[in-house]
Amino acid sequence: MYGVAIHGGAGTLPRSEMTSAREAQYRAGLSAALEAGFAALTSGGSSLDAVTRAVMALEDDPLFNAGRGSVYTLDGHHELDASLMEGSTRRAGAVCGLKHIRNPIALARAVMEHSPYVLLAAEGAEEFALAQGFTLVPQSYFHTEERLKQLVRIRDGDRSVSPLTISHVGTVGAVALDGRGRLAAATSTGGMTGKRYRRIGDSPLIGAGTYADDRACAASATGHGECFIRAAVCHDVCARVRYGGRSLESAVREVVHQELPAIGGEGGVIAIDGRGAVALEFNTEGMFRASRIAGGEPRLGIYRDAVI
Amino acid sequence: MYGVAIHGGAGTLPRSEMTSAREAQYRAGLSAALEAGFAALTSGGSSLDAVTRAVMALEDDPLFNAGRGSVYTLDGHHELDASLMEGSTRRAGAVCGLKHIRNPIALARAVMEHSPYVLLAAEGAEEFALAQGFTLVPQSYFHTEERLKQLVRIRDGDRSVSPLTISHVGTVGAVALDGRGRLAAATSTGGMTGKRYRRIGDSPLIGAGTYADDRACAASATGHGECFIRAAVCHDVCARVRYGGRSLESAVREVVHQELPAIGGEGGVIAIDGRGAVALEFNTEGMFRASRIAGGEPRLGIYRDAVI
Repeated sequence: MYGVAIHGGAGTLPRSEMTSAREAQYRAGLSAALEAGFAALTSGGSSLDAVTRAVMALEDDPLFNAGRGSVYTLDGHHELDASLMEGSTRRAGAVCGLKHIRNPIALARAVMEHSPYVLLAAEGAEEFALAQGFTLVPQSYFHTEERLKQLVRIRDGDRSVSPLTISHVGTVGAVALDGRGRLAAATSTGGMTGKRYRRIGDSPLIGAGTYADDRACAASATGHGECFIRAAVCHDVCARVRYGGRSLESAVREVVHQELPAIGGEGGVIAIDGRGAVALEFNTEGMFRASRIAGGEPRLGIYRDAVI
Repeated sequence: MYGVAIHGGAGTLPRSEMTSAREAQYRAGLSAALEAGFAALTSGGSSLDAVTRAVMALEDDPLFNAGRGSVYTLDGHHELDASLMEGSTRRAGAVCGLKHIRNPIALARAVMEHSPYVLLAAEGAEEFALAQGFTLVPQSYFHTEERLKQLVRIRDGDRSVSPLTISHVGTVGAVALDGRGRLAAATSTGGMTGKRYRRIGDSPLIGAGTYADDRACAASATGHGECFIRAAVCHDVCARVRYGGRSLESAVREVVHQELPAIGGEGGVIAIDGRGAVALEFNTEGMFRASRIAGGEPRLGIYRDAVI
C-alpha cells in the first residue's frame, strides 16, 4: 500500500471569479503535482521524496501561493516559508522568511538532512543555502501580475477582497505513505498577502502547518495561519489518533470543524495514515486537493460538492 | 486555588563548576522571579500577568540565558526568542531573532494583544516594537563575560564544553494558574551558544516551547530545541492530558522520560493544571526550578536530589 495527497490551499476563489478555463488550469497544476509525487512512490522512492517532488511542482506553478506566484508583503516583497517532516524518524526541516530561494521545500529538506538545526530564518537560511550549493534567484522570479494586483487592492483598502481568503488560495502541501510504511508531510507558502513585520505563519512550523509520526499519521494544513498555530493543528490531528483512538477521518474532522471554528480559524487539513486512509477536510468554500492511492485512479476536487 | 512554577533551564552546571556562592546566586534569582509571579496572583492579577512578570525577572537576571545574560551566536551577536500563551482564549504571541529588545517576553505579549499576528521575526518584530513604544537597547546590554568565554571555548573547539549543556543552563519559563481558573505559559531564551544561520529553537514556537489550554494544562520547556520542536513537546503534554486521560504528572513524565530520549532530546518541562497540580520533570543532571501554590511555601530545586 502507498499513496499521496496534496492541497493547493483552502478558501478557493469565489465561484464568481472562477472561469472554466481557470479551473482547468488549476486542475492541470494539481494533476501534475499529484503525478510527480505518485511517480516517486511507484518507482520505489520514499514518502519524503514523494512530498518533496509534489510540493516542488506546486512551488513552480505560478497559480499557487508558494515559490513562483507567491503573494506580496505589504512593502512589495516576497517572503517564503516551508517545512517538512519524516514520520519514521521524526526528523524535520523548515525555513522561513526566504527571499531568494526558488524551491523553499528543497531548502527545508537540506536543513533536515545536512544541518544540526530544524528551523532557519531569512538571511541565515539563505547563507546556509549558498553553503549547500543552492542558487539564489532574484525577487522578480516570484512575481505574478495577479498577486501584485491583490496587494494593490489590499493597500487601497478594497473591502471586497479579504487578505485571508485570497492568500489561502495557494498555500501548498503534500502527505504520503510509501511502500515501506513510512509517512511524510510537507508544506510551502508565500504567506499572507500584505503581511508585515516579518510575520511567520503556520506553514514553516512543525506541529502547526506540518507534522508526521508513523505511530499516528502525516498532516499538512492551509488556512488562517495565526489560528492554525494556536491550535497546533497538525500535531493535534496526530495526537487525537494516537492518544484519543480516533480514526484519521474523525481526528481531521474534529480539528477542522470543531477546534478551528471555535477560535475563528478558516482553512483545511490533508492527512494520510499507515493504512493508506486519506482525509481531505476544509471549513471554507473549497480546497484545491487531489489524492491517489496505489491501485486507484487520481481524484481531484476544488469545491465542496466535488466528487473526490 | 492559584499558583506559579518557573524554570531557569535544564542541564545545570556540572556540580564541579557549581560553588556554593554561585548556587546561592541562582537560588536568589529563582526566588525573586517566583515571588514576582506569585505576587501578581496574590494581588488578583491574571495567570498571564504572573508568567509575564516571572519571566521578565529572569530575563533581567544575567545568570540566565534570556534577556541580559543571553548566550552568543557564532558571529558574536545575541538573538533572542520568546513566546507566551493564554489557556482560556488560546491567544498566543511570539518573537524570534530579536537583537535589541530588553524583555522579549513583553514584546511577545504585545504581539498577542496588539497585532493580528502570532509570530514576528527579527527586524520586523523590532519595527513593530518601535511602533508600540518599546525602547531598543544596544547589543552590549545583553553582554556577560561568562557567556563570551563560553563562545570562545566553543569557537576554539574545546571538547570539554558542550554547546547544548551550557546553553540549556538558562532558558527561562513560567506557568501559572490564577484564581479564576485560567492557565498561562511563557518561555524566553537567548538560544544555543554558537548558533548560526539565524537558527530558531523551540522557545518561540507555540506547541513546542510553550502551550496553554484551560481544557488540559499549561507547559513551558527547556532543552535541546531541535528535538523539542520535533516532539512538539508542550502541545504533546496537553494532548496526553486531554485525549489520553493522563494525569498531569504522567503526561509530563512520559514526554520527558520516553518521547524525548527516544530522539535524543535532553531537557525538561514544567506544567500546571486547573487544579493546581504542578509537574517539574527533567532528564538531565538538574533543572533550575521553583514553584509556589496558594497557601504553601516556595519550593526551589536545582539538582535531581533537591527536595521540591
